[in-house]
This record gives sequence, structure tokens and C-alpha cells, in this order.
Amino acid sequence: VSILVTGAAGFVGVNLVRSLLLSGHDVVAFDKLGDGRHEHLRPFKGNPSFRFAQVDLVDVDAFRLALDAAHRRAAVTEVWHLAANSDIPAGISDPAVDHRDTFLTTFNTLILMKEFSIPAIAFASSSAVYGDHGAKVLTEDTGPLFPISNYGAMKLASEAIISAAVESFLEHAWLFRFPNVIGVPATHGVILDFVRKLKANPSVLTVLGDGTQQKGYLHVDELVDAMLFVRERATEPLNCFNVGSADEGVTVRFIAETVRDAVNPNAQIQYGLGSKGWVGDVPRFVYSIERLVALGWKPSMGSAEALRLAVRQIVKQEV
Amino acid sequence: VSILVTGAAGFVGVNLVRSLLLSGHDVVAFDKLGDGRHEHLRPFKGNPSFRFAQVDLVDVDAFRLALDAAHRRAAVTEVWHLAANSDIPAGISDPAVDHRDTFLTTFNTLILMKEFSIPAIAFASSSAVYGDHGAKVLTEDTGPLFPISNYGAMKLASEAIISAAVESFLEHAWLFRFPNVIGVPATHGVILDFVRKLKANPSVLTVLGDGTQQKGYLHVDELVDAMLFVRERATEPLNCFNVGSADEGVTVRFIAETVRDAVNPNAQIQYGLGSKGWVGDVPRFVYSIERLVALGWKPSMGSAEALRLAVRQIVKQEV
Repeated sequence: VSILVTGAAGFVGVNLVRSLLLSGHDVVAFDKLGDGRHEHLRPFKGNPSFRFAQVDLVDVDAFRLALDAAHRRAAVTEVWHLAANSDIPAGISDPAVDHRDTFLTTFNTLILMKEFSIPAIAFASSSAVYGDHGAKVLTEDTGPLFPISNYGAMKLASEAIISAAVESFLEHAWLFRFPNVIGVPATHGVILDFVRKLKANPSVLTVLGDGTQQKGYLHVDELVDAMLFVRERATEPLNCFNVGSADEGVTVRFIAETVRDAVNPNAQIQYGLGSKGWVGDVPRFVYSIERLVALGWKPSMGSAEALRLAVRQIVKQEV
Repeated sequence: VSILVTGAAGFVGVNLVRSLLLSGHDVVAFDKLGDGRHEHLRPFKGNPSFRFAQVDLVDVDAFRLALDAAHRRAAVTEVWHLAANSDIPAGISDPAVDHRDTFLTTFNTLILMKEFSIPAIAFASSSAVYGDHGAKVLTEDTGPLFPISNYGAMKLASEAIISAAVESFLEHAWLFRFPNVIGVPATHGVILDFVRKLKANPSVLTVLGDGTQQKGYLHVDELVDAMLFVRERATEPLNCFNVGSADEGVTVRFIAETVRDAVNPNAQIQYGLGSKGWVGDVPRFVYSIERLVALGWKPSMGSAEALRLAVRQIVKQEV
């Protein structure tokens, strides 16, 4: 048997594939390689437990062919569906981006899971499903769910059709609501932005917003560890878990200063106005991981520690 | 100026159009007339305040052309988006139905509202967004939202992209979460099913499930009244309201007996097993309309009264 990972060449995908292979699973990796992330999968080439197909899940016929080929070699019994648009601002200017890459990929995944009788899905959802609740602590049961980005909307839509599929044919689903995840290989995000800006102009780092925006950060190593833990321990038909740091997070100012200290301690940081970075960006939220902790998992790093580690890794990546 | 009503030839659409015309609005009515509901709009023909175009909103180019034509005559300042798949079981067997007719219609409506700078939308959402919460009282803030039908999932997805659009360009949105709505012109639903079954075979009425399934029912006249009330009084950018009866509803057994008494009092009623009628049908829920009541609106009929009225109307319709 084998496990299908979609979006396998993406930031979380690569780290998940590594963990699955290390724990002895056969992995089928699908990715459209839209952003030229070929090299992320290079470490696994030649591993007989690893197979890769370049496929855009939006094309259900191509997806079916690739899945059929994989299935004939070793029955796929579980899908880790990570494929999605990861560029939130792109989805703000054009809602078709998230409809296609964040939602239709999920829709087609479920269509084919039904066709191929694959009973279990793990899904990379997002804290963006919650929208802006101000200072309210966000648990998995928090409502209402009014996302403020198309990305969040299409993650919520994906959760919703998975939920309906659990009623209809799936045996198990695990929904993981990620906060901001950091680490390598970094392909986007605030740390990478800051590192690149500061390398392009070493004397000054300009920051969108006033730097007071605060978020929890989880390192990708811990995220993958948490997901695999939950996958084994949570046995309801539908399981939904916030995954995140146990703290209230760090500010953009902290991130800017950490990047400055790592790249060029003499650089000046210039802040903008307002606490929101862009339309659709939730300014601050408090994320409960009590359900995850109750199941027996806790992050070993706080947001600040995860951030410092990721900055070191990303600075190294960008050399 | 004018108001666009999508799904205008449908059950709720026809009743909404009537009320809007009666209160002096110019109405642009779009409908794909998929189920041959032409005759529902006949009463408005010749009214200079009423214009109709047959258009499937899934075809964004056709939708744009029709909207452009309407807009040139009288600027459309508000959309009442009711177009959706109304056949929940059809969406269970084929998720593409609700993706297309329930979600893409909303998606395209928002795309064009942005293009035409239309600032306000009223949306027919559904209690199906809540999924199965057992005996928990459902308020607009209830979470989690795990729908158990593709219909509910795609209504939730529609709410979610409307919510994101409010952050991005819309000035106002009103989301109405309907329970079961009854009245005429009936096109589907349990009353119509029972009336037709009993007319086909007057001696016996067979009921799916054991008849203990209980739901709140609101008469469509009251639904339209409530929505227009909320439209005037609720002034937040995003307004979400449960609309429903104030009571705990009536059982399928009550409906079956009411229909029997109206069609053939001597008929026998035969029940099936289990409290769920079909996959995706929420067996029982308790719906809070406190927010609506706090705004100043209350239904004048309870579920039982609404049900009796609708049965009389539907029996008359089916003569």
C-alpha cells in the first residue's frame, strides 16, 4: 500500500514526504511544479519507496490517469492533500486563483477518492477559515466562520466538502488548521521577503504596516510531527485540530529585528502605518491548541524560538 | 435603479419578486428556467418595473451580457442571489451539481458585482451549513460548521466567499440561513412528495424513515417578509441571520397526517425505519432566531400553522 501526498514539492509537502519515507511508508508524490520546485524533491530520487508524477489536480482526467498508474503499483489507502494556492495576496486580486488551486484541487481529490475507494484523507486547512475574531481565543469549535480572504474561504469550502464526504463515503478525515508555518524550503512568507529585501538593499528594511501585527508561528518540523501524531491517535470519522504554537506569537517587529540581526545588524528598519499588512490578512489572533495538547502533543519550541531557527535556515538557504 | 434577483423563477424567487414589485422597486429577474418554471413569472409579465432574462449564471459571459444590458437600462444597485441547486439528494449522488449550481453561481455573481461596482448582496444561505449538532441550539455564531451534504457545503462556501468579498469590495452583505421553507409555488419538498404520492395511490402513503424526524418550517410569505425587514434594519457590512420558525418544529408524522387529512382521510400511512430520510439529511435541529427577534421581527405562524397553510395551498396547486 502507499500514501498519496498532493502538493508534495511544496514547503510542507517536502517535509511531510521526508517524514513518511523515514517511517517506512511508500509515498506517491503529486505536484504540478508550478513554481519550479523540482529541486525540492531531489533528495528522494532513487528511493524505491518514492514515486513522483507531475500533475495538476485541477485537470481531473490527468489526475485520474496518474492516480490509476500509482494505484496499480501499490494500492493508495490514504491521501494527504496539501496542494493549494499558497500566495494569499494573489488570491485577493483574482478569486479564480483560490477557487482553482485551493478548492478545485480538493473537489477533484474527493471525486477520485470515491472512484478509487480510498477511505482516508488528511487535509491541510488553515487558521484563515476563522476570519477576524479580534482577541477571542480560537478553538476548533469557534464560530461564526467568516474568512476575510478568498484563500480562507476556499480552505473552508474544502473542509466543508470533506465533511460532506465523511457523511457520504469517507471513513476518516483529519483536518489540520495551520497557523503560520515557517522553516525550509521557504518559498514565500514574511521571513523570506525580509531576507531578500535586506540582501537586495542591505542598509534598510522596509516593513509593510507598523510592525505591531502579531502571530503565532510553528516550525514545519513540528507541524509534520503533530500531524502524524494526530493521524495515529485521533480516530473519529471527522477530526479537526488547530495546530500551532502554544503561545501568543511574535510581532512583525520581532521578525524584522531577527532578520536584521542575522543578515546585517547595522540595517535600519522602516515601518509603515496600520496593523494590517494587506486586505485579507488577519491582524491578530489567539489560537487554542488545547485539543491537540489533550491528545498528548505539544510543540517543543515557542514562536520566538521557531522564528529564530527558521531565520537561520532561510538565511542559509538564500546564500 | 433596479434590484437583480437571481433564481427569480424559483420557489422563493417568485415570492421575493412579488414583494419587491409591490413595494415599488424595479426588478431585474434572472433564471435559467432549468425546471420549466416559466409559468411562475407569468403574473409579472407586462409590468414595466419587471424585466426578465433567461440566463445560466454558471456561464459567466452570458451572465455578464445580461447584466450589462440590465445595467444600461437602470443601474443595478443590489443583488438578491437565490439561484442554487434546490435538489439536495441530486447533489449527494453527484457533487458537481452543487459545485456548479450552488457555488459557481455565487462565485460568478461576485465576480460581476465587482466588475459592475454593485455594492450590496442578499444571499439565500441555509441551515444546512451547520451540519449535525444534535440537540444543541443553533445560533448564527455556532461552530464548528461541518455540513453533511454537498448542498450545505456549497452554501457554506458561498457564505465564505461573500465574507471575503465584504473585506475586499462589497459594502453590505446579508446572509439568510433558511430552515425548511414551505408554500407555493412548490417545486419539491416533503409536502409536494406526499401530496403527489397520495394522489397516485390514494389508499396508502409510504414515508421514508420512521416519521420521528422533526424540523422547523417557515412559510415563504414570512421568509420574504423577514428578509426585507432585515435588509432595511441590519446595517453592518456583513449581516448573518437565521430565519425560521420560533418553535421546535413538527415531525414528519405530523406532515404525513396533515397531508392525508387533506387528500384522503381514509388513507393508511406506512413508515420506514430510522430517523434519517437520506444521507445528508440532518435528523433534528433546534434553530435560534433570537437575533432576528432582537431586531424586531417574529413569525406570525408557528411551524404547525405554516405547515397546514402550505398543505392547503399545495393540494390546491396540484389539482
